[in-house]
Amino acid sequence: MMHKVINTLDKIIHFKTAQAHCDIPCKIYDPSTALLAALSCVRLMDLIKEVESKETTGVADYAQISRVVIEKESACTEVKEAVRIIWGDYFKAPQFEQIPNAHDLAHSVMLQASKCKQSIDRTEGEKLVELVNAFAEAFWLTKGVSTYRAPCPYPPMLDTVYPDLKA
Amino acid sequence: MMHKVINTLDKIIHFKTAQAHCDIPCKIYDPSTALLAALSCVRLMDLIKEVESKETTGVADYAQISRVVIEKESACTEVKEAVRIIWGDYFKAPQFEQIPNAHDLAHSVMLQASKCKQSIDRTEGEKLVELVNAFAEAFWLTKGVSTYRAPCPYPPMLDTVYPDLKA
Amino acid sequence: MMHKVINTLDKIIHFKTAQAHCDIPCKIYDPSTALLAALSCVRLMDLIKEVESKETTGVADYAQISRVVIEKESACTEVKEAVRIIWGDYFKAPQFEQIPNAHDLAHSVMLQASKCKQSIDRTEGEKLVELVNAFAEAFWLTKGVSTYRAPCPYPPMLDTVYPDLKA
Amino acid sequence: MMHKVINTLDKIIHFKTAQAHCDIPCKIYDPSTALLAALSCVRLMDLIKEVESKETTGVADYAQISRVVIEKESACTEVKEAVRIIWGDYFKAPQFEQIPNAHDLAHSVMLQASKCKQSIDRTEGEKLVELVNAFAEAFWLTKGVSTYRAPCPYPPMLDTVYPDLKA
Amino acid sequence: MMHKVINTLDKIIHFKTAQAHCDIPCKIYDPSTALLAALSCVRLMDLIKEVESKETTGVADYAQISRVVIEKESACTEVKEAVRIIWGDYFKAPQFEQIPNAHDLAHSVMLQASKCKQSIDRTEGEKLVELVNAFAEAFWLTKGVSTYRAPCPYPPMLDTVYPDLKA
Amino acid sequence: MMHKVINTLDKIIHFKTAQAHCDIPCKIYDPSTALLAALSCVRLMDLIKEVESKETTGVADYAQISRVVIEKESACTEVKEAVRIIWGDYFKAPQFEQIPNAHDLAHSVMLQASKCKQSIDRTEGEKLVELVNAFAEAFWLTKGVSTYRAPCPYPPMLDTVYPDLKA
Repeated sequence: MMHKVINTLDKIIHFKTAQAHCDIPCKIYDPSTALLAALSCVRLMDLIKEVESKETTGVADYAQISRVVIEKESACTEVKEAVRIIWGDYFKAPQFEQIPNAHDLAHSVMLQASKCKQSIDRTEGEKLVELVNAFAEAFWLTKGVSTYRAPCPYPPMLDTVYPDLKA
Repeated sequence: MMHKVINTLDKIIHFKTAQAHCDIPCKIYDPSTALLAALSCVRLMDLIKEVESKETTGVADYAQISRVVIEKESACTEVKEAVRIIWGDYFKAPQFEQIPNAHDLAHSVMLQASKCKQSIDRTEGEKLVELVNAFAEAFWLTKGVSTYRAPCPYPPMLDTVYPDLKA
Repeated sequence: MMHKVINTLDKIIHFKTAQAHCDIPCKIYDPSTALLAALSCVRLMDLIKEVESKETTGVADYAQISRVVIEKESACTEVKEAVRIIWGDYFKAPQFEQIPNAHDLAHSVMLQASKCKQSIDRTEGEKLVELVNAFAEAFWLTKGVSTYRAPCPYPPMLDTVYPDLKA
Repeated sequence: MMHKVINTLDKIIHFKTAQAHCDIPCKIYDPSTALLAALSCVRLMDLIKEVESKETTGVADYAQISRVVIEKESACTEVKEAVRIIWGDYFKAPQFEQIPNAHDLAHSVMLQASKCKQSIDRTEGEKLVELVNAFAEAFWLTKGVSTYRAPCPYPPMLDTVYPDLKA
Repeated sequence: MMHKVINTLDKIIHFKTAQAHCDIPCKIYDPSTALLAALSCVRLMDLIKEVESKETTGVADYAQISRVVIEKESACTEVKEAVRIIWGDYFKAPQFEQIPNAHDLAHSVMLQASKCKQSIDRTEGEKLVELVNAFAEAFWLTKGVSTYRAPCPYPPMLDTVYPDLKA
Repeated sequence: MMHKVINTLDKIIHFKTAQAHCDIPCKIYDPSTALLAALSCVRLMDLIKEVESKETTGVADYAQISRVVIEKESACTEVKEAVRIIWGDYFKAPQFEQIPNAHDLAHSVMLQASKCKQSIDRTEGEKLVELVNAFAEAFWLTKGVSTYRAPCPYPPMLDTVYPDLKA
């Protein structure tokens, strides 16, 4: 039944925006926001690890965990939001032609960001950075901008995708 | 090049969550939030129309338009957020099997909500309600809950999808 | 005792604003937002219980408690906000005539939502749901819309008030 | 020096709130937040008036109106929130005995703040300040703190209720 | 190299606002917001101390710490925001002439508010209140308004700067 | 009188953080957030100009101006916030030695961002970008990271400071 409903919708609604490159006012899209948030997630996991490494934990440590966890939740949500905006506002027919797995890639970021909310395991955070790196590369590909990878110049120093803009 | 990166990612990352029904703590998902926001968008378009129908407009009218436009922006963003959460957090392999066009449906909501931000044309708002209705039906289908459509009991009185929970 | 105070108030107070049916542009009011937040509060209390049931707790558990507590705070605040909006924006003289204890009912929701912020005891959460159910029934009564109660179709599966809109 | 001040305070002060009905941890309640927001509402109405007084209006003027209206909406919402918190969290049986019309007073603030959102008429803003002044006096009465009225030391220079704390 | 860039900027940009008293639309500035937040920070530290004083701690206590820590983070951020607004929006050449160390004072508030985020030690909170008191006195001095200090009429009862407005 | 208070404070409070490089948990600071917001401000001014260029304006145009102005306000506030965080949280004694005019630079950003809120004149926006560029260069200088300038790869295509991380 569902499929019928959707198919009917497909027939009724013809998104003009889907055929055009940019018939809505151009906005500034930049995956750096999502990357910064993903890197923060890993950094915050490292700060939790520091507390975990202590021999004894007291109220000050619970307080520190609470602070860091709040920021981690917020960073993961920011990853989701930033990727949702690029995927949901910028990606249209021409971009999907260039990046056929864009839906899956965006959705993988959502699931991995959820995992990072639930986990304090750094490897989950690293996977998130890797997925957002892949998303950033996909984005810059659609813009015709070259990229390179380099460690971000602050902790957690992980390889990060940057646009190569130097003339 | 991009495709290689993604394919490699696909091989490295195996989402355990994707095979399971619910191995993360169950959350409460309900499309009523998205529907309420979409209906609000139409209602706010009607309020803009009221100002437009006036013969002369003054500062008080500009003020009213500003107020209503702000709320319309906010309602459209809420639609996007609410659909992103259900699509990005709840939809996993089993749900995608049931709703093969879930990616497209979620993405269509994003594009249409953007259109409603830019437009003051009620027909764009009605399309948004219809898309969110379709998304709500898809969601309830995956939950095994029947639905019915009825006019919402407040303006704009448009047909809205409700879960059929009466015993 | 409380009722006496209110009855006295009813006699003393004459709202100047209270003679009009609707002198502000009609908005969309729906208690489903408050109910969803109250149900979430109970669900989050259950998730805290899960951690409490573990034999040993470590940093990952503190992290989980922090996450859940943040969301519980937020859910309780949302209950307060959603009820404040309906009580403070929609309720005027005609509605207070139909629901003479509306002030007390709204205020009780505020106090109980505060209690749920401070407590991790599920029975406090259940009382909150019950109060918001009562508030929802009062609201729909003023709108002339019938309601029914059914378990919400997701955890915590508690009896929830729904408008009966099926033709 | 600081420590001496604090030690002296510890000796002098006996929290009245601590003996009173207070089954939730005591919080800091202060109506100055609500008053500041109500005064801002009037000030913003004056700024709208300035635009209205111009002979011709252009895009820069619409922009200014939009900016000011957004802030006015925000100020009015802050009034509602700040009063809701004191009424909903702090007022309990002992306070309602002292201020029998507290429900009506709080509700009147809500309605008037809604009016100020819809209006650009300064007299509506002045009524809001007066209602919040009355609410502030009621609050300080329950705390046993004297008050005085003086023009606030910035525009709109309206009479405002202040606690009289000077020894 | 940096200095050259800045010096060049100094030559290019001539802030008209810097010579004038108030050539932007006057806004309402009031340090009471920053003070209230700083006092809240100390109060919340006291509530953490209450948990710390317990002989045994369980999940309900972790939950309470999480709640209080969240609010403390928020209060410290509010201090920073409120001081940033007065320093960044209101302070211009004439105010800097009156308060030559205004930059340092504002910056000290930022650092101390950061410390209060990281610490649960009440003396850090007291230092924050003292710094914000000094900032409030500086502000009122530029406005030509006398001030006095008195214990705030609620916990933590610390000496707080108030404008002396009583005729 | 004020000066005496501050001088006394200077003597009492010795910020340990001021002598150390980083005795608080390291956070991720990146001026890219401030730059993105400043660039957005210019872009939004250009979108306002587009409406201004139309021969006739109607309700849809007022709506568009409201939308763009809201986003411009938000972008300017984000500039202020992002610069306040780096200046207020990261800059301590060693950084102030390297960048003696850091206080003035940060403060200039605040004033210019305020100007951009009030103005729809693109040259004001360009000055904001230039100031944030200077702030970004100052920041990277303290980190020992080289920078280069290149047009941002999206509108408004203005010269922007990027860290030079390519090996």
